[in-house]
Amino acid sequence: MEIIKGGVTAAKGFEAGYTAAGIKYKDRTDMALIYSKKPCKTAGTFTTNVVKAAPVQWDRKVVTGKAKSQAVIVNSGIANACTGAEGYGYCEETAKAAAKVLGVNADGVLIGSTGVIGMQMPMDRLKAGIAKLAEAKNSSLENGTLAAKAIMTTDTREKEIAVTFDIEGTTVTLGGMAKGSGMIHPNMCTMLSFLTTDAAISKKALQKALSEDIKDTYNMISVDGDTSTNDTVLLLANGAAKNEKIVEGTKSFRTFQKALRIVNEYLAKMMAGDGEGATALLEVTVRGAKSKKQAKVIAKSVVCSNLTKTAIAGHDANWGRILCAMGYSGENFDPEKVDLFFESAAGKLQIIEDGTALDYSEEKATEILSQPEVRAVADIKMGKASATAWGCDLTHGYIDINADYRS
Amino acid sequence: MEIIKGGVTAAKGFEAGYTAAGIKYKDRTDMALIYSKKPCKTAGTFTTNVVKAAPVQWDRKVVTGKAKSQAVIVNSGIANACTGAEGYGYCEETAKAAAKVLGVNADGVLIGSTGVIGMQMPMDRLKAGIAKLAEAKNSSLENGTLAAKAIMTTDTREKEIAVTFDIEGTTVTLGGMAKGSGMIHPNMCTMLSFLTTDAAISKKALQKALSEDIKDTYNMISVDGDTSTNDTVLLLANGAAKNEKIVEGTKSFRTFQKALRIVNEYLAKMMAGDGEGATALLEVTVRGAKSKKQAKVIAKSVVCSNLTKTAIAGHDANWGRILCAMGYSGENFDPEKVDLFFESAAGKLQIIEDGTALDYSEEKATEILSQPEVRAVADIKMGKASATAWGCDLTHGYIDINADYRS
Repeated sequence: MEIIKGGVTAAKGFEAGYTAAGIKYKDRTDMALIYSKKPCKTAGTFTTNVVKAAPVQWDRKVVTGKAKSQAVIVNSGIANACTGAEGYGYCEETAKAAAKVLGVNADGVLIGSTGVIGMQMPMDRLKAGIAKLAEAKNSSLENGTLAAKAIMTTDTREKEIAVTFDIEGTTVTLGGMAKGSGMIHPNMCTMLSFLTTDAAISKKALQKALSEDIKDTYNMISVDGDTSTNDTVLLLANGAAKNEKIVEGTKSFRTFQKALRIVNEYLAKMMAGDGEGATALLEVTVRGAKSKKQAKVIAKSVVCSNLTKTAIAGHDANWGRILCAMGYSGENFDPEKVDLFFESAAGKLQIIEDGTALDYSEEKATEILSQPEVRAVADIKMGKASATAWGCDLTHGYIDINADYRS
Repeated sequence: MEIIKGGVTAAKGFEAGYTAAGIKYKDRTDMALIYSKKPCKTAGTFTTNVVKAAPVQWDRKVVTGKAKSQAVIVNSGIANACTGAEGYGYCEETAKAAAKVLGVNADGVLIGSTGVIGMQMPMDRLKAGIAKLAEAKNSSLENGTLAAKAIMTTDTREKEIAVTFDIEGTTVTLGGMAKGSGMIHPNMCTMLSFLTTDAAISKKALQKALSEDIKDTYNMISVDGDTSTNDTVLLLANGAAKNEKIVEGTKSFRTFQKALRIVNEYLAKMMAGDGEGATALLEVTVRGAKSKKQAKVIAKSVVCSNLTKTAIAGHDANWGRILCAMGYSGENFDPEKVDLFFESAAGKLQIIEDGTALDYSEEKATEILSQPEVRAVADIKMGKASATAWGCDLTHGYIDINADYRS
């Protein structure tokens, strides 16, 4: 398993394009295309929000349908959520327009949207953008990176990663790009994440690998507790690596799962660390739990706590807020047994032993919490299970971005 | 039923005291006493957080015990949470010290604490404070108000109210004071709220009235989603009004319930509107629900949404965030049927009809949302139930207060 350069175009047979279509933003790119020369088996997971954006409804149909996919069209200006039948109709129009210029089947065109909720899509600009994307697409790594840049909204940096791994003597590649900075509290899936692989793999194995992996990656991050209407993870496999076909329950499947974990965990952490206004990635590990579920619930409760997040913003070792957030998670544990540690590139410090504060150095704690990646580890001494969740600090930047997002 | 001046000293036979004991703050009052000449029947509800502060553990024992209560000692500097056996021991010491100077039974001394988690109580200063409180106590309305001021932490204004009502020809009074500005997301109870009544009422009726009422009042507010370790509501009844004793299932009990609702709803709204950094009270009503539970879950999801709260801070009619927060509440409804209205002293405006935005005036919407109390009403057209939740906007002030709370 090796991490290599690139993102969605790292795997064989995938191309990417990007363009400035002026959907909402001016003076920046706002549309991206992922294209596969060969039709792909596709797995997808989507938001559990009752209010589902039109492209989420469209993609679910595509992923569960019989047609293979060859293209993903993404725009980062308008979410196309709460847009009714008109908005869904625009998805059909988008797929048809893309199918025509790309020479692919419209039933297999996937759509990703992110941006303002409630506005209708300017179809003339979107269609002009699709035509430009089709012209501009190529398989260079640079195009993959610029596509990752084009799907950003309030993100401050593009998010991509690729890995190669060996399947029965054949080198297979898996790569991906994602965006997500606000309205991030994925539930059974996440904001926009697009993964491509040249692996030959059964559709069932592909969906299973994805559905299981998101529970420990995207579903363990939170920026603001708000589960989006547009959360989508798509995983396209075109088989171009020509490996022996991966099926469930084999060593190859486990290898594929490991690769997927690396890619998804990386992208999920990138999203959390690049949360709106964030200055730090907050990683919280709960260990010594009696079950993985218990560890997850407690860890996620801490990364979602506004008071913990503001304390991290202030580099303040206000551990009481962490214990408090653990306590209201809904899971039971004995507060008198908890050990708590802070860690970062600046060092490691035990803060609490058996529920009581140690005589630790506040200065050292502040130094540790002043790094761009900080970690809290809580041992609840009930069993052997552990889990990690990722979030970010809550700063003035979050307020600046969101108090007047639409203007 | 009449709202009158005053708070905890409005009811007959209750006295209050306040003092500057220097527990954590300097140059301000930080301790308060509620005292009843006659022993009181007492009802209480407490935090559901697994991490329970020492005074919460102490008060639960007092409320469920056989001794009647005559005094409540409150400090607003240190929460006495996560302080282990030492912290609990300080509660016992506090009760004994108060019992001695007040000439009451230590088993009936209630304790309220709020402030920093994890620090031990400076008992010498606390005991000196108790002595001063005992000297300073009297039954004036002014002392009630100044006690309400002494229990504030990051609150910007004291919170008190009193009502009188008739029980079978006898005038009965119920009053209360509360504090709460951060770490406010009550679950089965809330931050510190102290209620006094001169009603003669059975202990069972008293607890039942309180336990039911908090579900629609304190449990429907949220400032930051963080359920405190110290949430406590205490209701003391000394019987000094000499009314015919109130028991469950009678007209008098329903009258008492109505009075309690007025007092608790007022104090709960005061807490939400005075949330840390808040510039506006956000009231969210969901109507047309198939059950009260459904309406409550959806309404509370909206007042807890950081994105909705920042939009309110920016006076931005970003209704998509409200629909989004309704959608991830966990309750099902048809987004295509939702009507949404914004209301305030500046007027009323329908924003969405059947899930789709109307051609409303953004200017008027901004005007409505620029008031200190704003209201969103969502009709989900499934039934006849409704519920209201209260929260506040999320502003730079919240970050300022919490990024470095301990220093």
